[in-house]
Amino acid sequence: MKRPPIHPPAADMLKLLEELAAFSAPGPGVTRLLYTPEWSGAQHFLQEKMAGLGLQVHTDSVGNVFGRLNGSQPSDKVILTGSHIDTVVNGGKYDGAYGVAAAVTALHYLSQTFGPPLRTLEAAAFCEEEGSRFPLTFWGSGNVTGLYDGRAAASIADPEGVTLNEAMKACGLGTGESRTDSEESSGSRGNSARREDIGMYVELHIEQGIILEQARQQIGVVQAIVGQRRYSARVTGAANHAGTTPMGLRRDALAGTAEMLSVLERSAVEAGDPLVATTGRLEVIPGTPNVIPGEVQFTLDIRHSEAERLESFCASLAEAFREIAERRGLKLELVPTLATSPAPMHQGLCEALEHICLEQGKSCRTMVSGAGHDAQLFAPGCRTAMIFVPSRAGISHSPEEYSSPEELAAGLDVLTALLYKLAYEAG
Amino acid sequence: MKRPPIHPPAADMLKLLEELAAFSAPGPGVTRLLYTPEWSGAQHFLQEKMAGLGLQVHTDSVGNVFGRLNGSQPSDKVILTGSHIDTVVNGGKYDGAYGVAAAVTALHYLSQTFGPPLRTLEAAAFCEEEGSRFPLTFWGSGNVTGLYDGRAAASIADPEGVTLNEAMKACGLGTGESRTDSEESSGSRGNSARREDIGMYVELHIEQGIILEQARQQIGVVQAIVGQRRYSARVTGAANHAGTTPMGLRRDALAGTAEMLSVLERSAVEAGDPLVATTGRLEVIPGTPNVIPGEVQFTLDIRHSEAERLESFCASLAEAFREIAERRGLKLELVPTLATSPAPMHQGLCEALEHICLEQGKSCRTMVSGAGHDAQLFAPGCRTAMIFVPSRAGISHSPEEYSSPEELAAGLDVLTALLYKLAYEAG
Repeated sequence: MKRPPIHPPAADMLKLLEELAAFSAPGPGVTRLLYTPEWSGAQHFLQEKMAGLGLQVHTDSVGNVFGRLNGSQPSDKVILTGSHIDTVVNGGKYDGAYGVAAAVTALHYLSQTFGPPLRTLEAAAFCEEEGSRFPLTFWGSGNVTGLYDGRAAASIADPEGVTLNEAMKACGLGTGESRTDSEESSGSRGNSARREDIGMYVELHIEQGIILEQARQQIGVVQAIVGQRRYSARVTGAANHAGTTPMGLRRDALAGTAEMLSVLERSAVEAGDPLVATTGRLEVIPGTPNVIPGEVQFTLDIRHSEAERLESFCASLAEAFREIAERRGLKLELVPTLATSPAPMHQGLCEALEHICLEQGKSCRTMVSGAGHDAQLFAPGCRTAMIFVPSRAGISHSPEEYSSPEELAAGLDVLTALLYKLAYEAG
Repeated sequence: MKRPPIHPPAADMLKLLEELAAFSAPGPGVTRLLYTPEWSGAQHFLQEKMAGLGLQVHTDSVGNVFGRLNGSQPSDKVILTGSHIDTVVNGGKYDGAYGVAAAVTALHYLSQTFGPPLRTLEAAAFCEEEGSRFPLTFWGSGNVTGLYDGRAAASIADPEGVTLNEAMKACGLGTGESRTDSEESSGSRGNSARREDIGMYVELHIEQGIILEQARQQIGVVQAIVGQRRYSARVTGAANHAGTTPMGLRRDALAGTAEMLSVLERSAVEAGDPLVATTGRLEVIPGTPNVIPGEVQFTLDIRHSEAERLESFCASLAEAFREIAERRGLKLELVPTLATSPAPMHQGLCEALEHICLEQGKSCRTMVSGAGHDAQLFAPGCRTAMIFVPSRAGISHSPEEYSSPEELAAGLDVLTALLYKLAYEAG
């Protein structure tokens, strides 16, 4: 089937991105934390924007926003596309917001150009993904997919001591506060944000890495989102006088940790891409120049797109760490703090995306996403795809985050063409 | 010459130690920081104690206290023995105070038993050695030996912003406040604490290390106090997303630092005793579990008893660090923050100490002091000796610091015998 030319208006999307960026707490870049006034402003703005563009708007009990374009075959499940509207502290304009702005622009363009689709399309703005205010992540997509049930543990609080449940209430959300203008058609049941009516999920996002820029490719077709293992490690030795304790009589927690970190890096390099392993936080106790460190606490963050290889890497690493600790007379505690499974994207959708890039004359490569995304919550339950565009110098979570208008437009073209293919083409 | 039996009263010394320990700020162990009320209490107590024992007391412009036993050959220079009366925060009873209590006890015993000496003896209680309140060390012995001239830089202040000069003034010390009951005989000139009349210095101290305990020896005869080099190091790479940055595209400041620390430890072990090398403080920036560290700051503390070997070790290490940084695309800044020379003790005095141990039937070994001591300020200018007694488990600068009454008494025996030999025997 010959597809008509697809030319969504990038200018509309770029304008929407700027409008969203204006909802920010003071300071460099964009700061839009969950359930803050800035967040609330952006969320209401989006509802009005979607309604103004002719989309049928509904929100759920946690504050996710959906703009719906009903299909003429309403028995089919919904094709959902979007991303999140929260940001990190002093983040950029593009992380999350790009996928939302592109989704809204694509749906408006498609309905204006081609009329109602066969299958129902929805643009989604998830309330939270980053974990920047409360110590949890994926609060938006997690409630839609059933990871959460709309109520957080009472202990989940922000650094000021405001609990997530209190913050929701203050925004008029949570129990009994679900607002929807078409309860039945949204598929949500009562107060739950859980939806069973989603057949596909497509997310457009900036790469937040340097692979596309280095490879000089316009589009990344994500094959899988990595699984993550995080650990909190504590190495205990003996604090002692740095002058009076001969090298042979030391149980130096930092020297032992240095050996572990060298093994971590070497093993990760040997394992090869896409395995990555990072120690981002490390504290030395007591932390005095002339005292041999008695204790070191550090974090481990290990990612791979294949569950089995991730598992075996972590097991070997723990074994190597234990050997180092034992040989040095140190105590090692290794506590798992996070474990997510790799989320493979749908192979058929990946192939469709590659085909669209070829048709549109856009360079593309398949790749793994080393960062987590809302898409990984949907992947286990429905056909899911992710599209990346380049991030300048790989910088993200920073006011320096940047992708050029041309790069952003290319991603919108590919997303829109995929949505057309999925929602407008028969069969 | 046959020496008479020397039996100084250990009980007096132990009582004095307990009395000094009572001058402490609240909290675990002993906290007696320079020019605080606790310090002032201890300093006045010592003056009265010394006077009560028949010693001629004088203080100087910085608050050092001396108790003098005039010799019958006043043309000879003074034989000084003592240590410091300040402590670290939550320190022990023995560090410094032991050498002061032993000096006072020895002089009192000698004068009571053998009458006035041929050569003048003085017991010294230096006001400060630890650097625990103000960012300088050896303020007591440094003023006596000419490292300082009684006035500190106006910028030297404690964490509360009180300058050293203000703190001195508040104690009635500093300019024009020198109190002495025999200005001429003390050898001090005007307001300066500088003394040119000291012919020998002997310091008795707890080891603060584990060598004597491990070797099961009662007495350590110190051959040299190590020289120290301290550096502040800063390694700069690129902070990046821990998930989206492949191992091959990282400039991880912590991974580079881990390699440096492994080289530091390996080189130090290869160099052999008495070289010691320590990183005691290390900070990772930004210090977030899922961000590759962009910067690491850490300290280096390197010690050896021979200047040349200390120098060449530091030079090789800096070269190795530079090679690591360059290979990894990291920036390395290595700033020297402290450089002290090794202080060899007087060989004749060391031999005399070993001979005394043999006579007294005490086990002893020669050793290097890895910690700094007031003795290192005197060593370049006069014959200097140091005597160590064991520290339980090598623990010091802690309420857990402990040496048994028998161990402390053995040190007092050896010190007193040496003082007898130096001050009472002709020739």
